[in-house]
Amino acid sequence: MSTPGRLAVVGLGPGDELTRTPEAVARVESATDLVGYGPYLDQIGMVRPDQVLHRSPNRKEADRARLALDLAAEGRDVVIVSSGDPGVFAMAAVVVEQLSDAHREQSDRWADVDVTIVAGITAATAAAARVGAPLGHDFCVMSLSDVLKPWSVVERRLHAAVGADFVVALYNPISRHRPWQLGAALEIVGQYRGAATPVLRARNVARATESVEVVELGTLDAEDVDMSTVLVIGSSRTTSFTDAHGRTWMLTPRSYDERSDAHHASASATVST
Amino acid sequence: MSTPGRLAVVGLGPGDELTRTPEAVARVESATDLVGYGPYLDQIGMVRPDQVLHRSPNRKEADRARLALDLAAEGRDVVIVSSGDPGVFAMAAVVVEQLSDAHREQSDRWADVDVTIVAGITAATAAAARVGAPLGHDFCVMSLSDVLKPWSVVERRLHAAVGADFVVALYNPISRHRPWQLGAALEIVGQYRGAATPVLRARNVARATESVEVVELGTLDAEDVDMSTVLVIGSSRTTSFTDAHGRTWMLTPRSYDERSDAHHASASATVST
Repeated sequence: MSTPGRLAVVGLGPGDELTRTPEAVARVESATDLVGYGPYLDQIGMVRPDQVLHRSPNRKEADRARLALDLAAEGRDVVIVSSGDPGVFAMAAVVVEQLSDAHREQSDRWADVDVTIVAGITAATAAAARVGAPLGHDFCVMSLSDVLKPWSVVERRLHAAVGADFVVALYNPISRHRPWQLGAALEIVGQYRGAATPVLRARNVARATESVEVVELGTLDAEDVDMSTVLVIGSSRTTSFTDAHGRTWMLTPRSYDERSDAHHASASATVST
Repeated sequence: MSTPGRLAVVGLGPGDELTRTPEAVARVESATDLVGYGPYLDQIGMVRPDQVLHRSPNRKEADRARLALDLAAEGRDVVIVSSGDPGVFAMAAVVVEQLSDAHREQSDRWADVDVTIVAGITAATAAAARVGAPLGHDFCVMSLSDVLKPWSVVERRLHAAVGADFVVALYNPISRHRPWQLGAALEIVGQYRGAATPVLRARNVARATESVEVVELGTLDAEDVDMSTVLVIGSSRTTSFTDAHGRTWMLTPRSYDERSDAHHASASATVST
């Protein structure tokens, strides 16, 4: 009988090794088996000849998780790679879903596998850093994908988040299979935010192909957004300015001035110090 | 005249060097001047004898940012350290606020300072990784501090976020100066979520003093929460289970089953594939 192995669900961070933690690097280096969607495996960079790569199709996340758990149960040292943070719309939930199912079914097939989630820097915060502090105040993080949740839930959450003046970071904003959803989402945002609201549009942060821009909500075009874009839509307080060197900053200030929000806020609020 | 220097606002990540990016480490190592709130400077670990430490009081963030910008304008290589990610309720917004003010006042005092924000892993995602995938679906990140925003805004956002069934991560949940706010917030959460809702209570992740627990909303006691705790409150779909080895997992699944949410969702929603 083989000794049970281990599985790490590793966040590679947004791009190259400069944004990757030593913990993530160490788990990738020690792995006997690396499991992942092809582009994430490619993101690793150097792979040793003795490491086995298991390329997995994009939409087969549950199969990927079970393969990795099975390999670990056989005694292998397995890593599933995710871009960004595996806990944010990525593989951590898929793996824990399998563990949860096995627990409910009282199956012990993976009971002795040592499972670790290794956090990485997620796209929204990496992108935010490029332009200053768009996430400097309360924010929400949503996936626009309606593959696994009904569109009505997306709509309801957008109304709630934008209506309560959160900054909103949108992951998976558009894809070939979901062409109209971003437009519908922006229509909802436009019910609460002016056309001049700053929006961060970021692609491939910390990679050679990085593209980061601050645009206005009114001119944001779904044509300029793809599956690997993250959008950060400002609150009513978010501002942007371009400095003397032509660099554009985006800022959601820490303080929230109630006077300019008379519509929603009550004048009797207590401010402690 | 001196050559203008540079300023990096660096996220150290949640704890030790295992969770810190090479980019953050490089900026700290090259710095001539390290500016920060004492505990964050202590988090760095090794500091060279030739590096100047500027310890700054906790609530003097704007002074700290201006000091750092002034040092950089004099030609120094300056780092402001933050725990976690500087863009999430931390120093990035404070620095960009100073730049924004200078821009509005047409001051060129810091015009030639090269400013960089270096992202780090923020507390909520680091804590989430410890217990599986509590942030596996849409979530909101809020500060419970009402020092810089009215409590009415906190209340309104809690109602919106919890009411729309987001997972909610709470930063700065309590302090000596804000003793009652957490209780008031939990009272709002309790209007929407059952007492058995899993809540992640995490302190000092990735440090020797780490304490991470999954508790039930109904038994969460404000007495067990302090300023450096982050709370992650589950959605109606979040589950937890304890495996054969006594490890407790917390999972917000990727899929959102509309049938169990008939109260809010419409039966006619389109699900694309």
